[in-house]
Amino acid sequence: MQGGARRLWTGATLVTLAGDRDWGLVPDGALVVEGETLRWVGPAAALPEAFRQGVVEERDLGGALVTPGLIDCHTHLVYGGERSAEFELRLQGATYEEIARAGGGIRSTVAATRLAGEHALHVLAVQRARALMAEGLTTLEVKSGYGLSLAAEAKCLRVARKLGELGLTVRTTYLGAHALPPEFDGREGGQDDYVDAVCAWLPELKRQGLVDAVDAFCERIAFTPAQTRRVFEAARALGLPVKLHAEQLSDQGGAALAAEFGALSCDHLEYLSDAGVAAMARAGTVAVLLPGAFYFLRETKLPPIAALREAGVPIALATDHNPGSSPGLSLLLMLNMACTFFRMTPEEALRGLTVNAARALGLPDRGRLAAGQRADFCIWDAAHPRELAYWFGRNPLRQTVAGGRPRA
Amino acid sequence: MQGGARRLWTGATLVTLAGDRDWGLVPDGALVVEGETLRWVGPAAALPEAFRQGVVEERDLGGALVTPGLIDCHTHLVYGGERSAEFELRLQGATYEEIARAGGGIRSTVAATRLAGEHALHVLAVQRARALMAEGLTTLEVKSGYGLSLAAEAKCLRVARKLGELGLTVRTTYLGAHALPPEFDGREGGQDDYVDAVCAWLPELKRQGLVDAVDAFCERIAFTPAQTRRVFEAARALGLPVKLHAEQLSDQGGAALAAEFGALSCDHLEYLSDAGVAAMARAGTVAVLLPGAFYFLRETKLPPIAALREAGVPIALATDHNPGSSPGLSLLLMLNMACTFFRMTPEEALRGLTVNAARALGLPDRGRLAAGQRADFCIWDAAHPRELAYWFGRNPLRQTVAGGRPRA
Ligand SMILES: [Zn+2]
Ligand SMILES: [Zn+2]
Repeated sequence: MQGGARRLWTGATLVTLAGDRDWGLVPDGALVVEGETLRWVGPAAALPEAFRQGVVEERDLGGALVTPGLIDCHTHLVYGGERSAEFELRLQGATYEEIARAGGGIRSTVAATRLAGEHALHVLAVQRARALMAEGLTTLEVKSGYGLSLAAEAKCLRVARKLGELGLTVRTTYLGAHALPPEFDGREGGQDDYVDAVCAWLPELKRQGLVDAVDAFCERIAFTPAQTRRVFEAARALGLPVKLHAEQLSDQGGAALAAEFGALSCDHLEYLSDAGVAAMARAGTVAVLLPGAFYFLRETKLPPIAALREAGVPIALATDHNPGSSPGLSLLLMLNMACTFFRMTPEEALRGLTVNAARALGLPDRGRLAAGQRADFCIWDAAHPRELAYWFGRNPLRQTVAGGRPRA
Repeated sequence: MQGGARRLWTGATLVTLAGDRDWGLVPDGALVVEGETLRWVGPAAALPEAFRQGVVEERDLGGALVTPGLIDCHTHLVYGGERSAEFELRLQGATYEEIARAGGGIRSTVAATRLAGEHALHVLAVQRARALMAEGLTTLEVKSGYGLSLAAEAKCLRVARKLGELGLTVRTTYLGAHALPPEFDGREGGQDDYVDAVCAWLPELKRQGLVDAVDAFCERIAFTPAQTRRVFEAARALGLPVKLHAEQLSDQGGAALAAEFGALSCDHLEYLSDAGVAAMARAGTVAVLLPGAFYFLRETKLPPIAALREAGVPIALATDHNPGSSPGLSLLLMLNMACTFFRMTPEEALRGLTVNAARALGLPDRGRLAAGQRADFCIWDAAHPRELAYWFGRNPLRQTVAGGRPRA
């Protein structure tokens, strides 16, 4: 028998998301797992006798709900420190200058991240990853972008990679073009020089096996489309896929640029234009919406959900976990916020954390319950999957299975 | 030694909230607990020798943060069923009529609650209470209002009372005047007849020990100020304190009416007028704000926080957990939402779930860390209390102590 021991799970209501519409519900369903892979998925009554043979273990879930494992496809999980002091100061009415003087802003996170040892960063990142895992996380994307030097970006990407030891699939994204580091600031051409450096570091980071994709922050307060293009060209030269923080605060045409490079995803997208939607649709680029940042920043401009739907652009969701604009660590809350703020349906929201999130990471082997998919799934104490989006601040997770292995 | 065994807790950063301002932080603090009561609170170095004597157990918290136990002073926790189908239908674009035909709205919850056996209601309520307890809940208010008959209201209040067996303090609030039950609807004077019934049931419910306070929903879509007054008069005749769902969707003058009856609290308050603020300040009535309902209903009209602050009205927070307008079960999320939506400071927010929530329930014996207070406290893995409001969807609770007893 290839692919490892065969295990049978029965008595489940399966939420397969197998087609492009509907939940793909299978009442009284069964799953056959071999090693890390789903070998058979369907109604228990239709399970072929051949798949019953060689089963080393059978578990009856007593009617529990089973969904694909949850995927967080956009996080900045590795960083030093936190920014609760800045959060408090702002609420106490401090001015921008007072906060800057008190050491607030992304600069403070860059300083804390550079200063932190690799082990210390790992400990903090593990705490954060475990919070996400408590709600069924099985695949995690982590961006660099608080190191902003070759050594510090490499350090953060190594810490991200190491999170895989928790029993997660980790995808690392190099986001050197996140912010301008202080040593490049305030001098003529500093921003372009820094983009040169970002591009120059990429081959070495790739050689070390630390880069699964390349991202940039294209915005008035960050990098221009021309600079973003240079980063993308450096990625393309190495055969690396790209993603983009695009159209969060203004329409820079970033999404169309990213689509030109066949981007896996464009993320945020509050100010996405119709042309941007069309370009993403043509390129098969996923729209990653980030309701936690929308909430925490008290945004009012909604991403163009209806246009994305109409154009057939797949919509994913993610936490965007970061210490400045989204210090949240709940995937289930993202489901509820996507429904509440963005008026997505519960099914669209769950697809956003499963099949479409997988697509945003270039991982077609997961995100659905189907034969041949990776055996990442969650077992929930719920009667219907819409409940996962309806409750908030409640965690009905019973157990997670990642790569065929039930988590303790 | 009176009051039970003496226990000493050391190595804590205490968040006493002892005064009316500031966190009341005590680094390297100690707590002496006797039975259910805090006997001494302060810096470990100042602990009198007399309090060290007879200590049966000492625990060093290794620098953890200790706050008063969390109090949810406004919930509708006891009900049958849930309303995720209605939630999904609405997001799928169903009309109000379609939802009503599909059995949505509060009527569906009343029907499910009436139908449910007492044991079934208890099982559901325990699940919900445990979700709140996972974040440090030690005192819980539960309102009736989905039974709407003497028998069904009594059933729900008994279920609420029984939650005390979980190691919580439970306060029960009779909210017969929540909605008009179907058997009184559609006939002339039905609403007034129902208010007569609500008042007539009160003595019997009180006799059974099921009522700690009396509440009503004063709103255009619910009961008038004149009807609310009759409910309050019935409460006053029995010496019961009152509370009010007031000014949520419009200014009905409900807060001023409640203040006239010395109400413990007025709750929601988005449309509270200056006159209402002044009346509450004069009466010492607490303003209970409900950020979960504000969020879930996508409200944009903010309660008058600045006016409440200026007038010295204590502000409490609560989940308002209910299946229609706030299916949330996280007190920590209420801290973050109070800061994010209402621009409260982290300290104001924590006071809202502790000392001011206690006041909203007429329980002066809790909500602070001070000698003589009930020994309800939470131990958190956090360096500063503002972190409790800063992170969202993350639970740094290490342990809860309720009535002096550490929870397993
Ligand atoms: Zn981001
Ligand atoms: Zn309420």
